[in-house]
Amino acid sequence: MRHIYADNAATTKMGQVAIRAMLPYLDGIYGNPSSLHSAGQAAAEALESARETMARGLGCEAREITFTSGGSEADNQAIRTAAWLGARKGKKHIVSTAFEHHAVLHTLDALVKEGFEVTLLDVHDDGLIAAEEVAAAIRPDTCLVTVMYANNEVGTVEPISEIGAVCRERGVLFHTDAVQAAGHLPIHVVEQNIDLLSLSAHKFHGPKGVGVLYARKGIPLQNLIYGGGQERGKRPGTENLPAIMGMAAAFEEALAHLEERSSQLTALRDRLIVGLEQIPHSLLNGHRTKRLPGNVSFCFEGIEGESLLLLLDDKGVEASSGSACTSGSLDPSHVLLALGRPHEIAHGSLRLTLSHETTEEEVDYMIGAVAEVVDYLRSISPVWRDLQSGKQNFVIQNK
Amino acid sequence: MRHIYADNAATTKMGQVAIRAMLPYLDGIYGNPSSLHSAGQAAAEALESARETMARGLGCEAREITFTSGGSEADNQAIRTAAWLGARKGKKHIVSTAFEHHAVLHTLDALVKEGFEVTLLDVHDDGLIAAEEVAAAIRPDTCLVTVMYANNEVGTVEPISEIGAVCRERGVLFHTDAVQAAGHLPIHVVEQNIDLLSLSAHKFHGPKGVGVLYARKGIPLQNLIYGGGQERGKRPGTENLPAIMGMAAAFEEALAHLEERSSQLTALRDRLIVGLEQIPHSLLNGHRTKRLPGNVSFCFEGIEGESLLLLLDDKGVEASSGSACTSGSLDPSHVLLALGRPHEIAHGSLRLTLSHETTEEEVDYMIGAVAEVVDYLRSISPVWRDLQSGKQNFVIQNK
Repeated sequence: MRHIYADNAATTKMGQVAIRAMLPYLDGIYGNPSSLHSAGQAAAEALESARETMARGLGCEAREITFTSGGSEADNQAIRTAAWLGARKGKKHIVSTAFEHHAVLHTLDALVKEGFEVTLLDVHDDGLIAAEEVAAAIRPDTCLVTVMYANNEVGTVEPISEIGAVCRERGVLFHTDAVQAAGHLPIHVVEQNIDLLSLSAHKFHGPKGVGVLYARKGIPLQNLIYGGGQERGKRPGTENLPAIMGMAAAFEEALAHLEERSSQLTALRDRLIVGLEQIPHSLLNGHRTKRLPGNVSFCFEGIEGESLLLLLDDKGVEASSGSACTSGSLDPSHVLLALGRPHEIAHGSLRLTLSHETTEEEVDYMIGAVAEVVDYLRSISPVWRDLQSGKQNFVIQNK
Repeated sequence: MRHIYADNAATTKMGQVAIRAMLPYLDGIYGNPSSLHSAGQAAAEALESARETMARGLGCEAREITFTSGGSEADNQAIRTAAWLGARKGKKHIVSTAFEHHAVLHTLDALVKEGFEVTLLDVHDDGLIAAEEVAAAIRPDTCLVTVMYANNEVGTVEPISEIGAVCRERGVLFHTDAVQAAGHLPIHVVEQNIDLLSLSAHKFHGPKGVGVLYARKGIPLQNLIYGGGQERGKRPGTENLPAIMGMAAAFEEALAHLEERSSQLTALRDRLIVGLEQIPHSLLNGHRTKRLPGNVSFCFEGIEGESLLLLLDDKGVEASSGSACTSGSLDPSHVLLALGRPHEIAHGSLRLTLSHETTEEEVDYMIGAVAEVVDYLRSISPVWRDLQSGKQNFVIQNK
């Protein structure tokens, strides 16, 4: 059977380069980097070389890199650190957006319970916010601005450099969740005025279970986990060296091919968008060009996203309705709601996220498969019948 | 050159069974377990099978297993959960021991700053505590007893079942850090009255970066990390499925060979102990038999542990002075101090931890190598000269 994996925003297939970088550390150089003996020291050297690779890729210094178990942990630790530093100065206000990943939003919820105040900026219906809107939300007691680099559902790319400049000017720490961006968009933390940044390896063909928290030097990280002296005592636990080596190799490879893959993916993405727009009463989510090169997100009126996914899966197309992290939930995506999509169409969403292995032929197959499935689902949908008969009004006007 | 890895308490070489279990999930079944499509569902099924494997090995139900990034995280989350539950009832006292791993001790330190009171029980000079001592320390406001199953430095095995029984009788939650015990000693959380248990895969020939927190059903885990709905929302972040599969395979294999490897290791351990005792002014740390089958820990008077390690490394023997997590620190081991070892001999400690791959011939080589290196270091040690001339008194009497 045909098999097209189009859920690369959920997770990616590990690349051979990353696998080859990881394997020697499973049963070869398996020492604990904290051990003084040769096996330990060989591991420690590898660990530091991986740290340098990640630092080069982010435009920072190796000592500004902390290895974590993934993006969620990095987000949590970044935000907790800024909150702790803010609280010490009596600054307990945080600015963010309504469509961040739950690793950010739920950490902010927890901080609200602890007495912080959070301003969640609305995003425009194109999935973008402007740096001026962030600037306007900053108060004298703001300790942190946290805005994602690219959204995990609709793929929109936020004006991170401008937001960073605003924050730097106002003396407010700036964190960006770059989990979707890293390996896919250029990052330079110095040029972009980023103080704290989170990334996760498995989103760029690296291993699961490992990520990075970049913290500009001078920002004293606070522990989420207490224990041994690893990562300067700020992230205890034996370092996951095989995964770290795999991540560094995957990141290096992704950056080496960034431009080439980006233009290839952009072309495929746009072909897919044009194809899906032919479906009546369909609506692209997020800005048409200011989006991740591999992200396509649509709402189709009159259908349920879950049925769409299951029938697409039957046709060999593996897609998502929104974030994998929230699947299983019956609520419509908080991201689509933040874009102002009404509930009735937010339920009928589809996310197709491509990789550099996706082909044009696969894109064309997906266009056909989605059109067929949407047609079929509408043919059995009572909502669609009501829309057709005029009993109910279309939200998405036909083009 | 000869190469004997005798630091298996720091970390172990991954077994082939575990590696083979892990590999298919890197670039084969790489889906996100939260995704609805086939790739995601295949991953989700694997995840649940691994959960069942771990549960079988611990004598609990699958839903009582939460996958974490390792032992430190599991320790932190277990203790934080019990503290949170206790605080709700006004119970803010915790009982532990002075020689726990830093993942426990430093979490307790953090709780003390937050208003908790902690009683750290002294261990006897044989590295053991008695359940009655725990019982005597429990107060009406005690919310948690946390005592490790086996110590990471001196290898002593604590009377966990008895301590569990005492806690159950007194209605106090009981957590055990089983990081050193899991895969090496039998565990049955129900029979042993354990409410919360932490383990780490890389200590039993599984992968790094993954562990388990067992929490008896009815104990509502508190988040260390906030985010997506993974692990019933209690441990967000895309599940590290390759590592989880490797852990489950390693655990299953370790348990299948537990008795056989345990008797083999016990024989090697005892041979090594008898051999090292021939060195004058040497002292075994921890109880002679109530210790992990693969753990040998000694103090040698008049020398520095670090020099000992480096010279042993030159002879191809990779050992440790204490915990890998605290190496780099100039302080003597808190574990040896807790056993009542004076500073002057706690500095001269050596930990040799064996695996089922260790041979009798390697043990004999280690005995010879340690004896030679200790001899040499004493020949150039001013402290040893003072001891020999009677200017200073021996702490360790010769046998």
